[in-house]
Amino acid sequence: MTKNRQIHLIETPKGKLEETHFRLVEADAPAVKDGEILVRTQIISLDAANRAWMQGATYRSAVEAGQVMAGGAVAEVVESKAAGFSPGDLVFADTGWQDYAAIPARTAQKVARAEPLSNLISVYGVAGLTAYFGLLSVGQPKAGETVVVSAAAGAVGSLVGQIAKIKGCRVIGVAGGAEKCAWLQSELGFDAAVDYKGQPVFKALRTAAPEGIDIFFDNTGGDIFEACLFQMKNRGRIVCCGAVSQYDGAPPPHGPRGVPGLIVVRRLRVEGFIVTDFNDQREAALGELQTWVREGKLKVQEDVIDGIENLPRALIGLLNGENRGKRMVRVA
Amino acid sequence: MTKNRQIHLIETPKGKLEETHFRLVEADAPAVKDGEILVRTQIISLDAANRAWMQGATYRSAVEAGQVMAGGAVAEVVESKAAGFSPGDLVFADTGWQDYAAIPARTAQKVARAEPLSNLISVYGVAGLTAYFGLLSVGQPKAGETVVVSAAAGAVGSLVGQIAKIKGCRVIGVAGGAEKCAWLQSELGFDAAVDYKGQPVFKALRTAAPEGIDIFFDNTGGDIFEACLFQMKNRGRIVCCGAVSQYDGAPPPHGPRGVPGLIVVRRLRVEGFIVTDFNDQREAALGELQTWVREGKLKVQEDVIDGIENLPRALIGLLNGENRGKRMVRVA
Repeated sequence: MTKNRQIHLIETPKGKLEETHFRLVEADAPAVKDGEILVRTQIISLDAANRAWMQGATYRSAVEAGQVMAGGAVAEVVESKAAGFSPGDLVFADTGWQDYAAIPARTAQKVARAEPLSNLISVYGVAGLTAYFGLLSVGQPKAGETVVVSAAAGAVGSLVGQIAKIKGCRVIGVAGGAEKCAWLQSELGFDAAVDYKGQPVFKALRTAAPEGIDIFFDNTGGDIFEACLFQMKNRGRIVCCGAVSQYDGAPPPHGPRGVPGLIVVRRLRVEGFIVTDFNDQREAALGELQTWVREGKLKVQEDVIDGIENLPRALIGLLNGENRGKRMVRVA
Repeated sequence: MTKNRQIHLIETPKGKLEETHFRLVEADAPAVKDGEILVRTQIISLDAANRAWMQGATYRSAVEAGQVMAGGAVAEVVESKAAGFSPGDLVFADTGWQDYAAIPARTAQKVARAEPLSNLISVYGVAGLTAYFGLLSVGQPKAGETVVVSAAAGAVGSLVGQIAKIKGCRVIGVAGGAEKCAWLQSELGFDAAVDYKGQPVFKALRTAAPEGIDIFFDNTGGDIFEACLFQMKNRGRIVCCGAVSQYDGAPPPHGPRGVPGLIVVRRLRVEGFIVTDFNDQREAALGELQTWVREGKLKVQEDVIDGIENLPRALIGLLNGENRGKRMVRVA
């Protein structure tokens, strides 16, 4: 039997996620049923949403203690009992954190090989498409507008800012640490950056965007959401993409007190989206992303860590804002 | 000199609004400058927004202590130094709480006489247009959808619910008190009503709308906003019209914690609006409202109080949820 290393979530975290919530387990590679494919995981994507899944059902069911930790990955088909899939095919699927997974073929998305492979998880993966549709279709930026993006040095944020520049916007990133902020400006071409760990965010944003914000692309929620909300221009758009500040800890206190009033007065649109809502426009989006990368307009920042055993630490670090660009773990 | 009774705001309230924050003052009627009209106030509209104006600038500048209290009214022109206005013309304008006001003609909107005159403040005034555009243009209801409206027995809410019924929706009103709730159902044709003073709102809504909410038309914010937010269907629409629960008391604690996550997962659109954003569609809207009233499809509920001296008490009562339908004060 082929050995299958798995990382289980052994306890649902109440507060901050710790490595002790996980355990590396050795199992046998699973058998494949009809309609399924057996895949060998290549690179596992790490996403702040991984932590949100532990809080309860979202757009997917909750990850419960005792299960293999869920996660998306680029994987290679090694055995197929499903029409249309052959050994050697490359797919993106929720394999979970393990070397091998038997998955229903309908949940796997075939992807064309890319060089490097990691691009399929960053710029041409969920991160790239999320940035693309969230900014362009939901946010609808116009040249000359001011765009603020939170978690700006992250997988999605770093692309959002660059795409906003491509569209002629003025871009301000909010990120943790002076070094990330310097990088956003010097390498990615952001016009300004606010270090939320080192500066009072509200004031720094006021300085960077004295006339207010047209589009706020939000990956964090919480205090940064609030600071931006109160600086939105009339008819501004807040693109709600994620709320990473709310994932890792006790479930957030409810009560959106103080919020609706401002949404009225400034005629804000606060709109949530999930990238799969735009599946019908996927190919066109990928084509445009590829063009921008080829032309050097879009820089691809990836944070690839080796070794399945490093998954828990890598996720915990992500939640602490350790990464720059798309974090993933190479397992094969 | 003609006597002019005025009600001044003599102190900006820190907590709940009290009658002692106002004083009735007798002044002389003002002189009219070029470009102005002198009007005799007929009926003054009371709106929860009156209280919000005391908190600071919104879509208008703040009402400061020492000033005549601001407020919209139907008024008759008695003297004109502006082209296009003649004595006897009827206007809607921010006259403030007084018998006579000299106002820049450009801020006055001529209105056709209606019978009763109070209709110009309720169904054919700001309340009617707000309900119309907020529900139809912002909320975009489809037949068969479930609509929840807060402050449902109020000026706007009572019209929103009826228009939603006209459009074939299932309508649930949230209002304070069993008597109001019974009235919403028996008189206005709401399908269900939730008494937020007598029932746990979240549970009662779950019972009334077990499959969730498509459109939440929000006049209150606060706890009712929260209860609805967590019961929205995917791609639901929350129409933010007002936040009366937040106006009368200390400024609300900020911090929209917990909010963005749900907006993402359910792809909610939270959008604010102000009725004047739709000025270009005003005439068409009024025509449709008139048709519905004529055909008996839309009931007009008004709450008219007599006497300028009763303005403070009437506003305070409004903030406490005392009224049913559009509250206004007849002063002439």
